[in-house]
Amino acid sequence: MQRKIYLQMHSREEAQQLFWSRFAPHSTGEETIASRMALGRVTAGPVSARFSSPSFHSAAMDGLAVRAEDTFGATDETPVTLRFDFGEAVLINTGYPLPPEKNAVIMIENVLLSEDGKEGLIRAPVYPWQHVRKVGEDIVATELLFPTGHQLRPPDIGALITGGCATIRVRKRPKVVIIPTGSELVTLEDSPDAIPPGKTIESNAIVLAGLAAQAGVEVEITPIISDDFDSIKTHLAAVLATEADLVIINAGSSAGSADYTVRIIEQLGEVLVHGITIMPGKPTILGAIADKPVVGIPGYPVSAIIAMEQLVVPLLAHMQGVYVAPPVAIKAILAKDLPSRSGIEEFRRMIVGRIGANFVAVPLKQGAGAITTLTRANGILCIAAASEGEMHGREVTIELLVPQPQVERTLLCTGSHDLCLDVLGDYLRKQDPAYPLASTHVGSLGGIMALKQGMCHLAGSHLLDPKDGSYNTTYIRKHLAGRDIRIVTLVHREQGFIVAKGNPKNITGVRDLFGAGIRFINRQAGSGTRVLLDYELSRHDLDPDGIDGYQQDEYTHMAVAVAVLSGKVDVGLGIKSAARALGLDFVPLVEERYDLLIPGEMFDTPMMQAVLAVIDTPLFKQTVEGMGGYSTRETGHLVPLD
Amino acid sequence: MQRKIYLQMHSREEAQQLFWSRFAPHSTGEETIASRMALGRVTAGPVSARFSSPSFHSAAMDGLAVRAEDTFGATDETPVTLRFDFGEAVLINTGYPLPPEKNAVIMIENVLLSEDGKEGLIRAPVYPWQHVRKVGEDIVATELLFPTGHQLRPPDIGALITGGCATIRVRKRPKVVIIPTGSELVTLEDSPDAIPPGKTIESNAIVLAGLAAQAGVEVEITPIISDDFDSIKTHLAAVLATEADLVIINAGSSAGSADYTVRIIEQLGEVLVHGITIMPGKPTILGAIADKPVVGIPGYPVSAIIAMEQLVVPLLAHMQGVYVAPPVAIKAILAKDLPSRSGIEEFRRMIVGRIGANFVAVPLKQGAGAITTLTRANGILCIAAASEGEMHGREVTIELLVPQPQVERTLLCTGSHDLCLDVLGDYLRKQDPAYPLASTHVGSLGGIMALKQGMCHLAGSHLLDPKDGSYNTTYIRKHLAGRDIRIVTLVHREQGFIVAKGNPKNITGVRDLFGAGIRFINRQAGSGTRVLLDYELSRHDLDPDGIDGYQQDEYTHMAVAVAVLSGKVDVGLGIKSAARALGLDFVPLVEERYDLLIPGEMFDTPMMQAVLAVIDTPLFKQTVEGMGGYSTRETGHLVPLD
Repeated sequence: MQRKIYLQMHSREEAQQLFWSRFAPHSTGEETIASRMALGRVTAGPVSARFSSPSFHSAAMDGLAVRAEDTFGATDETPVTLRFDFGEAVLINTGYPLPPEKNAVIMIENVLLSEDGKEGLIRAPVYPWQHVRKVGEDIVATELLFPTGHQLRPPDIGALITGGCATIRVRKRPKVVIIPTGSELVTLEDSPDAIPPGKTIESNAIVLAGLAAQAGVEVEITPIISDDFDSIKTHLAAVLATEADLVIINAGSSAGSADYTVRIIEQLGEVLVHGITIMPGKPTILGAIADKPVVGIPGYPVSAIIAMEQLVVPLLAHMQGVYVAPPVAIKAILAKDLPSRSGIEEFRRMIVGRIGANFVAVPLKQGAGAITTLTRANGILCIAAASEGEMHGREVTIELLVPQPQVERTLLCTGSHDLCLDVLGDYLRKQDPAYPLASTHVGSLGGIMALKQGMCHLAGSHLLDPKDGSYNTTYIRKHLAGRDIRIVTLVHREQGFIVAKGNPKNITGVRDLFGAGIRFINRQAGSGTRVLLDYELSRHDLDPDGIDGYQQDEYTHMAVAVAVLSGKVDVGLGIKSAARALGLDFVPLVEERYDLLIPGEMFDTPMMQAVLAVIDTPLFKQTVEGMGGYSTRETGHLVPLD
Repeated sequence: MQRKIYLQMHSREEAQQLFWSRFAPHSTGEETIASRMALGRVTAGPVSARFSSPSFHSAAMDGLAVRAEDTFGATDETPVTLRFDFGEAVLINTGYPLPPEKNAVIMIENVLLSEDGKEGLIRAPVYPWQHVRKVGEDIVATELLFPTGHQLRPPDIGALITGGCATIRVRKRPKVVIIPTGSELVTLEDSPDAIPPGKTIESNAIVLAGLAAQAGVEVEITPIISDDFDSIKTHLAAVLATEADLVIINAGSSAGSADYTVRIIEQLGEVLVHGITIMPGKPTILGAIADKPVVGIPGYPVSAIIAMEQLVVPLLAHMQGVYVAPPVAIKAILAKDLPSRSGIEEFRRMIVGRIGANFVAVPLKQGAGAITTLTRANGILCIAAASEGEMHGREVTIELLVPQPQVERTLLCTGSHDLCLDVLGDYLRKQDPAYPLASTHVGSLGGIMALKQGMCHLAGSHLLDPKDGSYNTTYIRKHLAGRDIRIVTLVHREQGFIVAKGNPKNITGVRDLFGAGIRFINRQAGSGTRVLLDYELSRHDLDPDGIDGYQQDEYTHMAVAVAVLSGKVDVGLGIKSAARALGLDFVPLVEERYDLLIPGEMFDTPMMQAVLAVIDTPLFKQTVEGMGGYSTRETGHLVPLD
């Protein structure tokens, strides 16, 4: 294995500066196109009108076209009669040309027409050019319609057509070519039913292409190229010889043994930057070959997107010579500690919502591979390179990924995980697209703590008090004393052992977790499921240390089920619907109640009422029951706290 | 002429309510498309993953794949050697499958490889599953990827592909069909060189189509239909029989003799609303034919756009079942009084910029026909129906038409009008697309008043003091006493009489304005050109009342030139470049200095320095001189105030 350390890492600003200064703005040429097709395009030079608009004096109202001088002196006492057959007045519709010699229009509402329709009586004069749209009132031929570098919007196209500009000179759209590389890659189309062992479905190129398209450029994706130095080099050279204005190679940008990109760019041109002090996105390569930018983008999905957004999209705007507004940023209270390595600028995906007067930002997990964190995030926190992280409760600046009003309508749901929350979120969006439900999973007790700190709108919880068999109320009284908390039952659900199909290790109860060679996976401390396990162990007077895997935990029922499915473990404790979703077997242990905990001050808000309305529908209940392991017999019931 | 008064006007809210409640959300059906093509589309149902991701345990780092248990006990003092040939460790690249029986990866940086490459020495243990991306770590097969009604962004497409969803069920895009009607309409393509007399170029349909396309729907424009009841009715019925989900008829929505739309909708279906208390946009018709929405949109360009944005675009979102965020709104100080009729909700186009700590909003002219006000506006002020208008200096709410950062960079230029400002604006955008120059014309003295009230960044002025022949300084000392104002000369320019080609009325000097049958057009009070005229008249001891047209005025040189070109008047006073732009003749009177007046506190801002840098370029000066009637001998010079 050849190991090459980055020679010199650059900060994002340095890298941007080095890269952008190398390529002239709007260097990709110009073209003349039909104005009708020019929406979103950028003017290559100043655009002047060829025609005036209106091109003739026209009536601005329905009424009588007259000579203003003929109306002078008309009053209630001395009305003036204008005869149509003598041409003293002419009936005219809005927009029609003013007859020659006429210079004003009297609104039809102010005219008393005679029975025979041959004359009109008026009781007030008009002044010259009243109610007349004059030649050139809007556009004067030769006047500047748009300066250079203007990005055309729908009304602009209307002004172009009205001003007689059937065609327009615009800047050519840069063409971006994306080369997916990697011997492990297959297309989904080639493997529609299952992924071949050790292979990965290529998805980055289509994401990068979408980001480039949103930046207003043309995009092409080439076939996948294997990890072979010569193949990639030959392919890159061929692409550069075509109309490409910018080439992206994805991935092979790191310094592993199959990471050829940097050496290929070196051989064909110049590597400007290799290694940027950002996370994700560190192994990005910025290069130039024959005056064209060539970018090596890392392979992890989130790294790829961050590198694209931070380094390529702004360059595409620069190449087109347009100003791109920075994203909207808001101040928000951070819901969790976020340690960060000093010297690295870190981009963290967040879910943001408004709680009372404040925005609250909840970090999503940070893996560079976790594309679902980007599909779920509605904001990004950038932790400066100089910082060692941010503390929970501090005010941080979040760049929004969606419009701010949507953030204000985002429901932050946390606490325990249950698959019914997905159903709830789905029906909520069906009922009212304005309310996205964003759920993060921190366990029941974590949810109660989030409620305490004002970091969520609602929390799912199933915390058993072994003393009296009650759920949640004991914990609320203890941790949320004095707070008005409403408890709404979402479901009753079966908890039990999730095991492989056919239950090969023959797990029947909690004692079987102690069997020889039985590998278990636990849930995290503070989760209701962990509380349940510990209760069952103590009830049978069993020592947790005897379980292989008690110390290893996962944060969701599905993660436990996946651990079983993948053969990593033999058994875990979780809900029936998770086992069923993955085709695993399930050994029931108890039925428990799963509630939503809602602060009183939020109970009557429209967003919370929308949630409660969904829970109450027969459709929601039917869908939940259909998933297996659920009862909705008390769904929507308010549980008294005392 | 048949005159039909609107039976009942509706407020915008009433009209929206009546209209939208009639059509069910996402009623336009569903379709299955390739996920690769689904950018911007809306999910028709919940989407679940088919594959897990990763689909196998893989290395998260370049390094050695090991059994964690084999590394326990490794320390600096007791390093552990792992032999590759015995399979104790396997070299592995990031993303590659973990070999069977291995459960952790040691980063290559922490391994000392032997010379022969057959073994690696480690000085610290790893724990099980360290640096391993586990099966399903990002996506678990069966998990919910997106709820119903989710509009897909680029990372979402990546998640779909990664999750094995090659196709996706999405809502069909509604299809909007636009019917342009009007006997006066011609297409620009049919009349590329000149507009036939009395005809108007059709431009609304393409603007409405652009707005519909931005709302994410399919659009089709039919050929133009003449103002003939039966033709329009037959055509509309045919369009409704096709795949149209919504039909727009433009125009004929008013109540004039050729306004057939309302009667046609009545005959084929039902008119829900005719007449809405908004301005522009009042004559809008909302109807339903065979359960499809049919909208009659007024003919004036601005009316058409307002009606489309207020009534059709939100319905299209409703039909697609997506949430559309309202536009960003800011608070701004209103620069001018804006009286408004009570009972009418008025939409006024504004130019907004930031001056010091405040946003300032300058109204543009309000004609319903003035499409150029929409191409220039960056904000809209909505004056409530109950209001009788807004006073200058008051704080008002402006909905932004461009991103807020662009508003913050908009340069508000006012005062006297000169064509060089267009050149300046053009070169400024060429140099830095971030700075749009927005100029409005209120005359030199109006500009000085705007400076006094803090309503502009800079003002153009050419106010002559007849006593000493100086420009601007006398007026600044009088009206801006105590203020730090910098005076930068933009150009010297020729003022004179703009006359028809060949000077048919033989105007040679100011005395000729008094000739029999000579029609003059004046500039508004407070303009430098008006000051110049009055000075010339008083110098020759002439009485303005003897001039036919002295009381009629225009606000710009170009408007004066257009009045001459259209034959409305014989002569006006203005700058040579305006005469030249329209191919008119010019009789020089004086050369005058035209300065930019800049508050001292803005002089050193980046945006103002960008302006001054442009003025100083040879290219700017060459272009200005090339327009005729200009000298740049002192362009960019700072004029001392004392």
